[in-house]
Amino acid sequence: MTAFQDYYPEEFSHCYGCGKSNPNGHQLKSFWDNDTTVAHFTPKDYHTGGYPGNVYGGLIASLLDCHGTATAAAAAFRFEQRTMDTKPPIRFVTASLKVDYLKPTPHGVELEMRGHIVEVKPHKVTLDLTLSANGVVCAKAFMVAVRLPDNPST
Amino acid sequence: MTAFQDYYPEEFSHCYGCGKSNPNGHQLKSFWDNDTTVAHFTPKDYHTGGYPGNVYGGLIASLLDCHGTATAAAAAFRFEQRTMDTKPPIRFVTASLKVDYLKPTPHGVELEMRGHIVEVKPHKVTLDLTLSANGVVCAKAFMVAVRLPDNPST
Repeated sequence: MTAFQDYYPEEFSHCYGCGKSNPNGHQLKSFWDNDTTVAHFTPKDYHTGGYPGNVYGGLIASLLDCHGTATAAAAAFRFEQRTMDTKPPIRFVTASLKVDYLKPTPHGVELEMRGHIVEVKPHKVTLDLTLSANGVVCAKAFMVAVRLPDNPST
Repeated sequence: MTAFQDYYPEEFSHCYGCGKSNPNGHQLKSFWDNDTTVAHFTPKDYHTGGYPGNVYGGLIASLLDCHGTATAAAAAFRFEQRTMDTKPPIRFVTASLKVDYLKPTPHGVELEMRGHIVEVKPHKVTLDLTLSANGVVCAKAFMVAVRLPDNPST
């Protein structure tokens, strides 16, 4: 399977969170799982939070953000009934992200991010997101993502 | 001036965003500026966003998060009319963070984060946050931070 982010044109592939062309970044990969989307990430040993044993909250927001905008793009392709390798490419950016930290996220295990699409409009996608560790939802988020204008050069 | 984060006990000084004992992290430093708080950070060259020339949105959320919880702790010390070097230490964690990305944040310049305290209660602080580049507010946030129970060992 090709990840959503791996369809991004090279120009848009340098995101620290999910760009395949950013060797210093997280290189998050998101996929469809039926009507929801999923991504996995194992924090590095230095991604520690303010409280011992917990994951850094900023990383949690970052992972949800990248998985969210990737989900928004994938949802827009589905809405247009075309695959992600067709032109023009679709890119979304975050207008608003609200993260609720429900409980501490344990460090040292793989995290799972899931996206649940609430509404797709031509230029705006809203979605719910969750981040889980060991099968327990530790954070949830609500995102409003907006579409960037198509760039005829890409 | 000593930064808020530099008063954190060693046990709580490993946050990737602002811990003085995390050599891989951002080591954000927050200070009072009259009744508001301020921090500065210059993104690394690899902190690129999904769109060329813009800062990574996850970093923006991360910087606001760390500056927010540090501001909450500082506000609680002021509320108790004691300085941050007194015992017991006060630590806050994020319950909820809503970030609105108002406009692209340009890459390559120093960013300024400011905290504006909305309300201080013994176990909860709410605050508004802004992130600016070149004097222009590019993102704003609203945070609810909750106090961790005092640890008698620290």
